[in-house]
Amino acid sequence: MSHLERIGISLDKDILSRFDALITGQGYPNRSEAIRDLIRRRLSEEELEKPTARAIAGVFLVYDHHSTGLSRKMLELQHHNLLQTVSSLHVHLDHENCLEIIVLKGRVKDISQVSDKLTSLKGVKLSRVNFLALGK
Amino acid sequence: MSHLERIGISLDKDILSRFDALITGQGYPNRSEAIRDLIRRRLSEEELEKPTARAIAGVFLVYDHHSTGLSRKMLELQHHNLLQTVSSLHVHLDHENCLEIIVLKGRVKDISQVSDKLTSLKGVKLSRVNFLALGK
Amino acid sequence: MSHLERIGISLDKDILSRFDALITGQGYPNRSEAIRDLIRRRLSEEELEKPTARAIAGVFLVYDHHSTGLSRKMLELQHHNLLQTVSSLHVHLDHENCLEIIVLKGRVKDISQVSDKLTSLKGVKLSRVNFLALGK
Amino acid sequence: MSHLERIGISLDKDILSRFDALITGQGYPNRSEAIRDLIRRRLSEEELEKPTARAIAGVFLVYDHHSTGLSRKMLELQHHNLLQTVSSLHVHLDHENCLEIIVLKGRVKDISQVSDKLTSLKGVKLSRVNFLALGK
Repeated sequence: MSHLERIGISLDKDILSRFDALITGQGYPNRSEAIRDLIRRRLSEEELEKPTARAIAGVFLVYDHHSTGLSRKMLELQHHNLLQTVSSLHVHLDHENCLEIIVLKGRVKDISQVSDKLTSLKGVKLSRVNFLALGK
Repeated sequence: MSHLERIGISLDKDILSRFDALITGQGYPNRSEAIRDLIRRRLSEEELEKPTARAIAGVFLVYDHHSTGLSRKMLELQHHNLLQTVSSLHVHLDHENCLEIIVLKGRVKDISQVSDKLTSLKGVKLSRVNFLALGK
Repeated sequence: MSHLERIGISLDKDILSRFDALITGQGYPNRSEAIRDLIRRRLSEEELEKPTARAIAGVFLVYDHHSTGLSRKMLELQHHNLLQTVSSLHVHLDHENCLEIIVLKGRVKDISQVSDKLTSLKGVKLSRVNFLALGK
Repeated sequence: MSHLERIGISLDKDILSRFDALITGQGYPNRSEAIRDLIRRRLSEEELEKPTARAIAGVFLVYDHHSTGLSRKMLELQHHNLLQTVSSLHVHLDHENCLEIIVLKGRVKDISQVSDKLTSLKGVKLSRVNFLALGK
């Protein structure tokens, strides 16, 4: 459990009222919570710029499940020796397409390398990778 | 099963050799596959600019699992009447943090609205949303 | 001149010390200034999601200045009747390439439409658009 | 002047007709031109991931021109010894705000460092950086 610290900041009245309107619309209970989220996102972005930062990533792949051999190749790549495949989720989209979300843990550059390989597999139609840095 | 069509394009020799080096490094079996991926990504980006486009999205949430009541609120939001919660995946990160990936299907603007609400829940520390448009 | 308001927020000690380290490295004089920037960026992002929002944009174009007729077509597009071309900047990159930055003022969707046309002109090799929303 | 090479690629009929509709709407004269743009953008993205890549960047700054001393500090930063300030453009937005676009040439990481410093100057309200890699 970490300790809370209270800080004061000064802001333009106009900026503040626009920010209040935005975060109320989004459902934030108070300003502290909303500003904490902005700060955490900024720290995570900063962290992810280092190729050796440790991160957790979700690789999204939409693929044709008629492609023979794709699943096997995907499994092999997930068992890359520098990465930990935490989990994966399979969604049946329609009679032709599947969505696979693979959660990987490791260094940013190792994850990128594996996700590049996944993306380029024949049969994979769309892909996207989401990185989250958790600090230490 | 859709029909393939063959088209010809002309390219700078220099650009082509740099592109070949890049896609070989990524593991693409050939240029057609790599160019198809660029085109699909472009079409998906274009599609996602329309707020009424139908999409599939993965909402990533890192949250403190000591936050009482968070799971219940997350469940309520997933049962938003305009969206279909396709599936969700829960990963235990460490003794304090969890990762939840929620796969939602619906219109871009409805998904955004719900993911804003999820992001702003007290206890949620980091979040990110990934959209994929699948065309029709 | 707008009025300043002072608000208090509470933050994890750990998050706060990482944030302090980041912003000191970037050169911020104090936390208020850094948090104000995060808030302004968030408001601008939010604003830019509306296609009718008024914005100022910089269109970056790298092009081959041997392409005959390109400059004339670029000028015509800048004189789109729904937009105001505020200014433009021309940089000579090397004996083949030029960079042109065109500053446009108008609604997000009108700017996007014109920048799409600029991007697709024969001879334009790379392009990127930067939007800034200034609120009212 | 570089040599053109002609390559053939095969594509889904459906994907192709959606791509044709998109690029016709954008104003592309033909598919080669549109695919070349996708490839150049991909190469530029790839290049920019290397912190030592040479790039050209546009730093956008919206700032309060009443802030005393800001212009002087901006000038000092532009004269960073590892960067070349190619050019800059000043736009008067309203009676309070100015837009300054500074074109910098150098390595990605040196540009990032200077643009961080510019962004964090007191009086700067919004900022954004646009990188373009031009290959060698």
